[in-house]
Amino acid sequence: MRAAIIHGAHDVRVAERPDPTVREPTDAVIRTVATCVCGSDLWRYRGLAPVPEPKPIGHEYVGVVEEIGDAVNTLKPGDFVVGGFLHSDNRCPVCRKGMQSACPHGGGFDGCQAERIRIPNADGTLIATPGRPDADLVPSLLALSDVMGTGWHAAVSADVRPGSSVVVVGDGAVGLCGVLASAQLGATTIIAMSRHADRQAVATEFGATHVVPERGEDGLARVRELTEGIGADAVLECVGTEEARLDAVEYTRPGGMIGVVGLPHGDLPTDRLFWSNKGIRGGPAPVRAYLPHLIDLVWARQIDPGRVFDLTLPLSEVAEAYRAMDERRAIKVLLQP
Amino acid sequence: MRAAIIHGAHDVRVAERPDPTVREPTDAVIRTVATCVCGSDLWRYRGLAPVPEPKPIGHEYVGVVEEIGDAVNTLKPGDFVVGGFLHSDNRCPVCRKGMQSACPHGGGFDGCQAERIRIPNADGTLIATPGRPDADLVPSLLALSDVMGTGWHAAVSADVRPGSSVVVVGDGAVGLCGVLASAQLGATTIIAMSRHADRQAVATEFGATHVVPERGEDGLARVRELTEGIGADAVLECVGTEEARLDAVEYTRPGGMIGVVGLPHGDLPTDRLFWSNKGIRGGPAPVRAYLPHLIDLVWARQIDPGRVFDLTLPLSEVAEAYRAMDERRAIKVLLQP
Repeated sequence: MRAAIIHGAHDVRVAERPDPTVREPTDAVIRTVATCVCGSDLWRYRGLAPVPEPKPIGHEYVGVVEEIGDAVNTLKPGDFVVGGFLHSDNRCPVCRKGMQSACPHGGGFDGCQAERIRIPNADGTLIATPGRPDADLVPSLLALSDVMGTGWHAAVSADVRPGSSVVVVGDGAVGLCGVLASAQLGATTIIAMSRHADRQAVATEFGATHVVPERGEDGLARVRELTEGIGADAVLECVGTEEARLDAVEYTRPGGMIGVVGLPHGDLPTDRLFWSNKGIRGGPAPVRAYLPHLIDLVWARQIDPGRVFDLTLPLSEVAEAYRAMDERRAIKVLLQP
Repeated sequence: MRAAIIHGAHDVRVAERPDPTVREPTDAVIRTVATCVCGSDLWRYRGLAPVPEPKPIGHEYVGVVEEIGDAVNTLKPGDFVVGGFLHSDNRCPVCRKGMQSACPHGGGFDGCQAERIRIPNADGTLIATPGRPDADLVPSLLALSDVMGTGWHAAVSADVRPGSSVVVVGDGAVGLCGVLASAQLGATTIIAMSRHADRQAVATEFGATHVVPERGEDGLARVRELTEGIGADAVLECVGTEEARLDAVEYTRPGGMIGVVGLPHGDLPTDRLFWSNKGIRGGPAPVRAYLPHLIDLVWARQIDPGRVFDLTLPLSEVAEAYRAMDERRAIKVLLQP
């Protein structure tokens, strides 16, 4: 089969690899219907994370089950499935608390930008859709694999609820999905911090009530104007830089909550959080916990997170997909195997 | 009137001071019925915080209104009142969010270990009880002024709810009140980390289902045994040392929440919190937000937080009160003016 391999900075190529096979009785092998490039893949692409040797890459996917292990009970060949970027047994005490991303029997997998993928813990990781989706639903189902699940987690972690005021820091695919999640969870003021016209448009379509292009003191002043002068109930930090995190603290009202899904860089200003009673929560999204509800919403065409894909390319053009995202010509690129 | 004055480390004395008077139209002056010594007062008493000049001390009180300013509407002379350790206008956007401890028009006051106190923002700070309380209710009403309000805030910040498993770090008066708050909020497993028999007894009376005297690896092993091997849903950090805070992180399950009310010392392990999705929230308690409910519970004799007072002394013996708490001969000392 063909698969994307990262060789080093700015060097991703498609190559032939052996087809994956069922190794454990809990495995499934799926034929990929769509996959995509993640902002977090760019860390290695940009040389900001090491690539000691050529390695398959990608962790987002939807596909059709081709083969299952003897212990897989909830899936059968031919099922169209969605799964998160981490596998989990979905049965242990941690999973039962809804924190599948910390499942001690789970983990990550790379190599999903490929024609086929082996999924461990298939019963605890994949969910079959009610039937074969219409083609126009595929991007939105694919978005659930990471960015929409992660945006949802940011909103849940920030305790977004009906009537909340929300600021979303970061206008990448995850931040935009955070806007969509906040709207679904009933927020009534949703402020998207965005300077890019294309992303502002998606944010508005997803439910942003205000778009703030300013940064620094001006951005803070605009946020305060929109939140009775005190800051937002909930702030979604969807970037991961120290600057974004400190901005998020500023945008939060006393007693408010910051939901973090961007990878942590830099220490937290503990004292500042404490004296103003600002809380912080978040981490890798337990996508599996949110999938049933999110699949229902997509299936009923109530949400359309697939709007974050503004470029579609064949898998053979994966190098161009990375370039387009690296150069910010695309928000997110869908790959067709 | 007589008032406690701190002169420096290990030097608190009663002295004569002028009676306080109404200065602002929003002030009230109360005659103190009971006051007490707080663990946070010991920072200065132990020489761990500076005392540049002799200063009145104390921030917990219940009393009877003697005089009100022209703009005070909800109180009248003769009312028995309870108030928190910070004043607030209880009307601004921050207060309306329930975060009165961050009211931009409020602040702290010292000097409550005295026969009379001037309370600014009286309408937004004090609440009159339904009538003159029976003498046995006075200690419990006094406890609401800080320690019970703060323990309640730790539990609320840690998102304690029906069915939660909770660990309480710290067996001082605030920690013990955190146990009581957790029980009231419906937690079904409440683990008090305590090595002192007298405090263990109060913890059990307040609703602790388990008492763990062990620390370090052994303490963590015991907590895990009691929480399906994964740690608690909610951990209340009621100490404020770096060690206590790191212990709290360990005791928390993936996706769980740490409620902090101990003053922050040391930075947070940001990465560790993120990768296990542990959240942290808390700070100075908005006692005013919780007072109406807590007064109801005390008035109905459903809770008895006054149990944390295990020594009662006249105000004239304030020096002995500080010594008893400093030497851990008493959990908390009530002073009778």
